[in-house]
Order: sequence, then structure tokens, then C-alpha cells
Amino acid sequence: MSSQLTNRRVLLSSRPKGVPEADHFTVEDADVPEIADGEFLVKTEYWSVDPAMRGWVNDAPNYLPPVEIGAVMRSFAVGTVVASRHADYAEGEVVSGMFGWQRYAVSDGSNVDRKVEETDLPVSLALGVLGLNGVTAYFGLTDGCEPKAGETVVVSTAAGAVGSAVGQIAKIMGCRTVGITGSAEKAALCTNSLGYDVAINYRAEDVTGALKAACPDGIDCYFDNTSGPITDAVMTQLAIGARITICGTVAITDWDPLPVGPRVHRQLMVARARMQGLLILDYKPRFGEAIEHLAGWVREGKLARNEHILDGADAAPGAIKMLYEGRNNGKLLVHVD
Amino acid sequence: MSSQLTNRRVLLSSRPKGVPEADHFTVEDADVPEIADGEFLVKTEYWSVDPAMRGWVNDAPNYLPPVEIGAVMRSFAVGTVVASRHADYAEGEVVSGMFGWQRYAVSDGSNVDRKVEETDLPVSLALGVLGLNGVTAYFGLTDGCEPKAGETVVVSTAAGAVGSAVGQIAKIMGCRTVGITGSAEKAALCTNSLGYDVAINYRAEDVTGALKAACPDGIDCYFDNTSGPITDAVMTQLAIGARITICGTVAITDWDPLPVGPRVHRQLMVARARMQGLLILDYKPRFGEAIEHLAGWVREGKLARNEHILDGADAAPGAIKMLYEGRNNGKLLVHVD
Repeated sequence: MSSQLTNRRVLLSSRPKGVPEADHFTVEDADVPEIADGEFLVKTEYWSVDPAMRGWVNDAPNYLPPVEIGAVMRSFAVGTVVASRHADYAEGEVVSGMFGWQRYAVSDGSNVDRKVEETDLPVSLALGVLGLNGVTAYFGLTDGCEPKAGETVVVSTAAGAVGSAVGQIAKIMGCRTVGITGSAEKAALCTNSLGYDVAINYRAEDVTGALKAACPDGIDCYFDNTSGPITDAVMTQLAIGARITICGTVAITDWDPLPVGPRVHRQLMVARARMQGLLILDYKPRFGEAIEHLAGWVREGKLARNEHILDGADAAPGAIKMLYEGRNNGKLLVHVD
Repeated sequence: MSSQLTNRRVLLSSRPKGVPEADHFTVEDADVPEIADGEFLVKTEYWSVDPAMRGWVNDAPNYLPPVEIGAVMRSFAVGTVVASRHADYAEGEVVSGMFGWQRYAVSDGSNVDRKVEETDLPVSLALGVLGLNGVTAYFGLTDGCEPKAGETVVVSTAAGAVGSAVGQIAKIMGCRTVGITGSAEKAALCTNSLGYDVAINYRAEDVTGALKAACPDGIDCYFDNTSGPITDAVMTQLAIGARITICGTVAITDWDPLPVGPRVHRQLMVARARMQGLLILDYKPRFGEAIEHLAGWVREGKLARNEHILDGADAAPGAIKMLYEGRNNGKLLVHVD
């Protein structure tokens, strides 16, 4: 049995093809690591579960090298500095960063995303709406889609960790918002709690027809988390000058070999539209600007907390699969104590 | 037999599916039209042949309504004002605009692109490198691709009317240029006359392998006139932050139903790349700025004239097909007298 004085860790034990499942990982207890000069020890409290983790474990070109077999699974996490021999980090400070799926992480600061200063708000938000998901939503929407008040913004995975923030921020910016999601329950969440003007359940409705009804003047902005058939439907209804942010491709489980789909070139040309890929880490120098806006909106009650929290390290191995199957409601996290 | 005092015209006689061929048109002589107050008469000298004309005769969504059956084929042309009852246009002035495939066109000015002022240069250039092709190359490259000196710019249909200008302008801007074209003769034109650092003959070479050899650090900018397999090969080799202008889709002859090809979403995301459709008419207010640069480069000998001129109205009906089969060398024009 695990105690808080062991370092419970989740290791990648075999290389998945496509979406990793529970049996690609092993959970084990190790000793709490020692820190050297210039290092500090983080006791993590929440581990993040993100679509990008699929790419991190596959052996295909990506923006980061694949996680090695036998290594701790790469992930974002938030926790507290419990020991420090680093001048910039003091015991008791809360930090978020790429600490991995492990209870105790040694850091030299290079894998820290930020110190969490908004201690009036729940610490888990630093992995969601006040973390990479929130800043992804913020910059992907404001920079990538450049929505103007009155425009129509369509969001795929509309109730998910990023999508739910996109929809709410677009609403704050005065846009008409249309969310596409995968269950009646999530569709209700979209319109009841997340401020969407229209929610489309792609599992129950004809997406093309529903989009036509919801967007009679075409789609000005599309925040894409899916690729696949939902995106294909959106692409047939672009307004002139449409802007598309490609943030994720969760509907496609395997990109090797490249899957085929309708060619987008003529649609982009006829609409003079722009489609742009987003990697949020490129925005790191500007994260503070986003967090300030986002924390303000959370405090004002304009940006709802939207979290799905699993309990304990043993829940982590199956969590990525759960995400790809859409069985989460909101930002998926693992709570460890 | 046609005389200069009849209005020789090329009419669309049936609706093509895909690329229009000679028998979709009829050539006939009509009377020279009369002009009313506020109108002027243009005697055309060169008719333009452009890939966009395929879209103009198909009954699919486009940025202009389809040409009606029995109507004069829509086209750009350049000619001289031979009679005027319009305050802004005087006899003897040279104008370019959407005058159609007809020897005499009545205009109220609304279909004029511009008055051709650079009378020291051949008037045909107003349909090519000093016309929409040139300004398309100019804005598609400078605005759409935003190349920086030292970057690698890949151009499809590299020896064509637009592509040849793109390659030369990119070279003027200090870029390394790689042209993709469809014959050994055109490949030689690319490197010998158009300043490309490397030319790839896609009919004889493996494009993916040739691009890898030519662009070891990846492709920073891609000016796309083709869609199809050439674009698919380019997309596998994008540098981080790549910018793509979609200017044409000449490799795909039919977009209804949408053809399938490799999905681009993950490639764009991983490279944080941008893909943007261009309709040059959106830039009309800024054409003067481009023409000034382009004419300057022509006069300095940095921008080569690159024209393929067919003789007489009877050559027009088969010209669009010729373009799509790549049987032209440079900007395809019909000369009428």
C-alpha cells in the first residue's frame, strides 16, 4: 500500500499505437527522491489528463520527443514546494509545470510553467481554466480566431476543458456561440452552464444541417479540437474571411499513415479563410496576460469552473482513453494525496 | 470572315463539368455595340486565360455567379478606349478589366481594374506580371507567406503566370526558392530564367524526395497553385511556423463532390503553420502599391516577362483546357486584332 512518504509514479510500460490504454502503464512506488543544490521537491496534488498525451507516447513526429518506455508519464501537474535548495523557489509555494504523473517531482525550475499566485481560487484551476487549457482557449481564440462582437463562433468539444473556456470567452467578447459536443448531457451543460447560444449533439444530430440552422450567415470563427467529420461539416459553411484555430485533433486516433478526408484547399480559397495550428507553449512569455484576464472572469463569475476529477494514481492509466472516448465532463484531472 | 468592324465574341454554349473544353464555347461575330451616356467602348487587344475561369463556368459555389449559357465568356482583357461618353475615360486611354472574350466591350467603368499608365512597357504585361497575376504573386507572397530573407520558399506551377512572378519576387526578397513544375523544359526555364535555386519536375521526379533534398531545414513558405499530390508532398515537410498561401487548385479538376486527400490538420498543428486562401480582388484598393513595385522590377530587369501568346479569337475556346494540361509556357494570352 502506498503512503504519502513513497513516490507513487505512473510509468509508460509499452508503446501504444494510437490512444494509450490502461495496460500501457504500470503504477509503482519508489522512494521520495533527494534534491541537489539548485533543485526543489514538488509534492503534486493534481495531475492533468490532456489529449496531447496521446502524441507524447506515440513514436511519430511531434513537438516533443516521445516518452521513453519505463519513464514516468509526462504530464502537467500542480503542487506545493515541500523542500528547496533553489534560490527562486521557497517551501510552501504553489507551482504548476511538467512534473509528470508522480507524487514527488524534483525540479530545477526548467519544467515549471508558473508560480500559482491566485491562492484565493482552487489550486486545481491552475491545470484547467487558469492553466494551459485556459490560456490555450484565450490565445487560440483571441489571436487565432480574432473574433469580433456579433460574429458566430463554433467550438468543437464544446464542453471539454479547452472548448468550455473558448465558448465562455467568445460570449464575453460579444459573439454568438455554437458548441458541438457528444451527448445530450453535455449539450445541456453547454447551453445551461457554459453560455452557448446553440449546442449540437453530434452523436444524435446531423451536424451539417444543425450548423446550417444555427449559423445562417456562415461560420466566422471555428475553434477546432477534433479534425474528422465535425470539422468537415464546419468547413462547408465558412463565412467569407473565416478564421480557424486548429488546437487539437481528438477525433482522429491515428495519424500514421495520414488519414484522408475532404480536401480543404478550395473551401479556404473561396472563403479567403485562414486555418492555423496552435501550440500553446509558443505563447509562454504571454501566459501572465491571459491568466490575469481569466482569473478576473472566474472571480466575476463569468467563467465557470468545469472539472472532472478522478481519485488516486490508479485512475491515471485509463484516463487518456476515457478522454478520447468523451467520457469526461470538463477538464479531466487526477487527484493524488 | 471577321473584320475589325465586327464584334468577334466567344460565348459559353454549354455547361462543363470540370475543365471547359473547346466545344463548350462558340465563336461568333456580332455588331459593334453602341454606347450610351456614362459608357465607353473598349477595343480589346489581349484576352487573358486564367485557371479561375474553370470555376466561373461551373455551377458550384464560387465568389462570382457562374457565367450564363449564351453569354460572352467572362475574362480579363486589356485594350484601348476607342469611343467614350464617360467623363473619366478618354479615347486613347489603355484600360484593363473584366471585359470578356470579345473584341469590343461596353463599360461603365465598374468592370475596369485600372488604367494602364506604364506605357513604356508592353500592354500585354497588364494581364500578366503587371496585372492580376503579378499583384496576386505580390500580395499572396508578401501578405500571405510573409517571407523573410534566408527562408525557403516553395512555389507550385513555378513557371506559370503567377508562380513565375512569385519565384522572382521571393528571390528579390532574399529567399531561397524552389520551384515545382511539370516538364524538363519548364524546369530549365525556372533555373535559367526565373532565378529559382532548385527546380523539381514533378512528372519525372519523386517530389517528396526532391523536396527533402532541396529543403533540408523544411519549407518556410509555400505558394500553392495546385492542391493535390504536390501540395500533399509539401505538407509533410513544413518548417515550424510555415505560412501557406492557397492561390489556386489547378491539380484538382472537379470539386463537386469534394475530393479526398491527406488531412492537413495535424501537420498544421505540429508545425504551428498557417494556411490561408487568397482572392486577389479583395486587395483591389492596394493594387497601385503592387504595380509600382512590379513595374520597377520589370524596368530594372529583375522580373522577367514570361508570356505564351495564342493568335486570334478562335484559339480562345481551347485555351483553358490547355492551361489545365500545363501545355503553356508562362502567362497564357489570346491576341486579337
